[in-house]
Amino acid sequence: MNRRQFAETTAGALSALAMGAWPFGRWQERRQVNGPRLTDTLARLGQIGRNPATGGINRVAFSEADREARAFVAGLMRAAGLEVRIDAAGNLMGRRAGTAPNRPPLMFGSHVDSVPEGGNYDGPVGTMAAIEVAQTLADRDLRTRHPLEVVVFSNEEGGKTGSRAVSGEVEARELDLVTASGKTIRDGIAFIGGEPGDLGRAGRERGSIAAFLELHVEQGAVLERGGIAIGVVEGIVGIKRWNVTVDGFANHAGTTPMDARRDPLVAAARFIDAVHRIARDTPGRQVATVGRIRAEPGAPNVIPGRVTLSLEIRDLEMAKIDRVFDVVRRAADETGGATGTTFRFDLFYTSHAAPTDERLRRLVEESARALDLSTLRMPSGAGHDAQSIALLAPVGMIFVPSVGGISHSPEELTRAEHVVNGANVLLETVLALDSA
Amino acid sequence: MNRRQFAETTAGALSALAMGAWPFGRWQERRQVNGPRLTDTLARLGQIGRNPATGGINRVAFSEADREARAFVAGLMRAAGLEVRIDAAGNLMGRRAGTAPNRPPLMFGSHVDSVPEGGNYDGPVGTMAAIEVAQTLADRDLRTRHPLEVVVFSNEEGGKTGSRAVSGEVEARELDLVTASGKTIRDGIAFIGGEPGDLGRAGRERGSIAAFLELHVEQGAVLERGGIAIGVVEGIVGIKRWNVTVDGFANHAGTTPMDARRDPLVAAARFIDAVHRIARDTPGRQVATVGRIRAEPGAPNVIPGRVTLSLEIRDLEMAKIDRVFDVVRRAADETGGATGTTFRFDLFYTSHAAPTDERLRRLVEESARALDLSTLRMPSGAGHDAQSIALLAPVGMIFVPSVGGISHSPEELTRAEHVVNGANVLLETVLALDSA
Repeated sequence: MNRRQFAETTAGALSALAMGAWPFGRWQERRQVNGPRLTDTLARLGQIGRNPATGGINRVAFSEADREARAFVAGLMRAAGLEVRIDAAGNLMGRRAGTAPNRPPLMFGSHVDSVPEGGNYDGPVGTMAAIEVAQTLADRDLRTRHPLEVVVFSNEEGGKTGSRAVSGEVEARELDLVTASGKTIRDGIAFIGGEPGDLGRAGRERGSIAAFLELHVEQGAVLERGGIAIGVVEGIVGIKRWNVTVDGFANHAGTTPMDARRDPLVAAARFIDAVHRIARDTPGRQVATVGRIRAEPGAPNVIPGRVTLSLEIRDLEMAKIDRVFDVVRRAADETGGATGTTFRFDLFYTSHAAPTDERLRRLVEESARALDLSTLRMPSGAGHDAQSIALLAPVGMIFVPSVGGISHSPEELTRAEHVVNGANVLLETVLALDSA
Repeated sequence: MNRRQFAETTAGALSALAMGAWPFGRWQERRQVNGPRLTDTLARLGQIGRNPATGGINRVAFSEADREARAFVAGLMRAAGLEVRIDAAGNLMGRRAGTAPNRPPLMFGSHVDSVPEGGNYDGPVGTMAAIEVAQTLADRDLRTRHPLEVVVFSNEEGGKTGSRAVSGEVEARELDLVTASGKTIRDGIAFIGGEPGDLGRAGRERGSIAAFLELHVEQGAVLERGGIAIGVVEGIVGIKRWNVTVDGFANHAGTTPMDARRDPLVAAARFIDAVHRIARDTPGRQVATVGRIRAEPGAPNVIPGRVTLSLEIRDLEMAKIDRVFDVVRRAADETGGATGTTFRFDLFYTSHAAPTDERLRRLVEESARALDLSTLRMPSGAGHDAQSIALLAPVGMIFVPSVGGISHSPEELTRAEHVVNGANVLLETVLALDSA
């Protein structure tokens, strides 16, 4: 049948699915995951840490709810025939042997921890889909040549601790940071069964993982607005963040005429507008944001003397970030000259862009095409565990649409049909990788 | 001699004064205050509450330093032959009888309390000059027909409590407010010898004060920039303050394309710039300020969902404040439409403009002219005790230059020559009023 007929058939089937009417048995006839089962396990996970008043998920890393969620997931792993272990960083690993000797594992998975009052899709979709893929393979007794490793990384939202431990990036001093759970990372890792004193053992060698795949919700509205089923992630954008200090001269708001002011908040205002316009009007998909601002002394009747604000620029290409920053900085200098203020920029955070592997992008695209799902290549504006693993192994990422682009919110939602689409693309891609 | 010759002579004499070389005795020959004595008492007051590390004055109302300063001033009052009392609001009053029966008093004075880490000119210049005027009259045995009342109002910086008690404006609930001293206004008034339980007794009847004069430092740089000796205050500006709430939509700073954002901080930035331009470019002397801003949630990696900021507009004419606000609000609505955000304005503070008395303005001008001092009519952008008393009596205000327009700071400075000029204008104006 042609694309249109397929789409209509699929739409009908998916409507039935949404009403809970799709018989489980029919999934057995095709090499696809069991959609209703996946929808069910995802919903069950969503009961853990749920705030009944708001619908928000409170499953911050190292909380009781996080531990409970991991125990639930470990049970599903065992049911899928995976051999479960917790590594030194608290990552939950479910392994299945391969048929060929000495192959490095194919790894796939995501995370189950949430932000405070978050949703049940950012992390859980990729995790539950990974387990569903393993369960589907077990159901059909499909063996792979490579060992498979389903992974649930620890503390993604609080700094990607688990995946960064795998790539050897965690610094000793990080262990003392207090997380949203109230526990330090050190205590939190121990709380979920890891060994913070022996974190190095979580590290993997370069080349020891055949490939890593992560299915994740987009967290933006690009796929939804385009009516596209699958995002083929070109990479995780790099990020630079600066503290910007604008110095003027604090003075009495009543006695200082307008033309005698050196008001750093007026200068900061022009700067914020310029940042937005530059990022919007420069060709490309860079984004730039001012999210934090503070005026000192901060009283209605005092012209501020100093304004501090944050500047963040993201792009897939680090050099593009620097080029955009150069334009922004020139605009700041001009504003400073015009307002009698000075701008200072202190870079305080750099996250390097992590491109995905071109072969994996093509395999994801081919898998989606085989399922007659539309695709779009796109950057990931958000950070993901995949970017840590990219330091060791080829990585691929599969995005599925987020309703309204909303994320880190009780309103976060990815429709069941899109979750199932993503899981099927993950399954196809794993099998394609295994046979490649 | 012509104006130029006089100015040169004066400049030479004032240079001598600055070096401490002017002999005290020469002041006796003219109907002028004793400049060196005034400079000295002002400097002595400046030792009370001084932070030796910064030079800042910490004499907040109702502090130990405030009480000590008031005791020092009371001593000077008694030395000047004034009958000292403390009214129910803690105002320090030094009275001298008049020669004519049943005349209402001529009142003049200011305050001695400071902001934290303030200077020794905002308040003290007017207070010490008033005492110097009384002392000069005593020295020369000059009697006035009106009784004279030298006043040091309580808690000017914390809400003009003393002068507002005189005009009957203090509300009962204010007494429970905690001031910078850590004491409530109630406890603070008792601490400096007032009777907070009987505050009504501090009130004066309309018409019971012949006139009130206040000498004060300008706290702006208008006089200094114009090279003008004396500001003739046209009135104390009215003030309106609003809380402005800008609502947009919080979102992920990495995943939300620039053209899909509803960023209230970008909208607020355009608003702040518009406020500045409107206040600057509208004919008149209005001022408008955004001094406080907050973005929520306020993280570098989150597009804010809400921004709150303060808006303050001041002018001598309340209707002008409203007209400027209308223009500002229209600009906000346009920005809201262009950015997908909404603006809400909540008026939370109104202080009515208090014009000075035209007859007193002219007397101040004539007194300055008699002393060959240049004058400029100007609004007071800052609030003063005189605006409370304006509800009961004709008021006049005399401004002297502030170096660099700096106030509420350890760097606050009014040069000795300007303090003495102001005291002489005050003396002349009191005598002119008395004989009018």
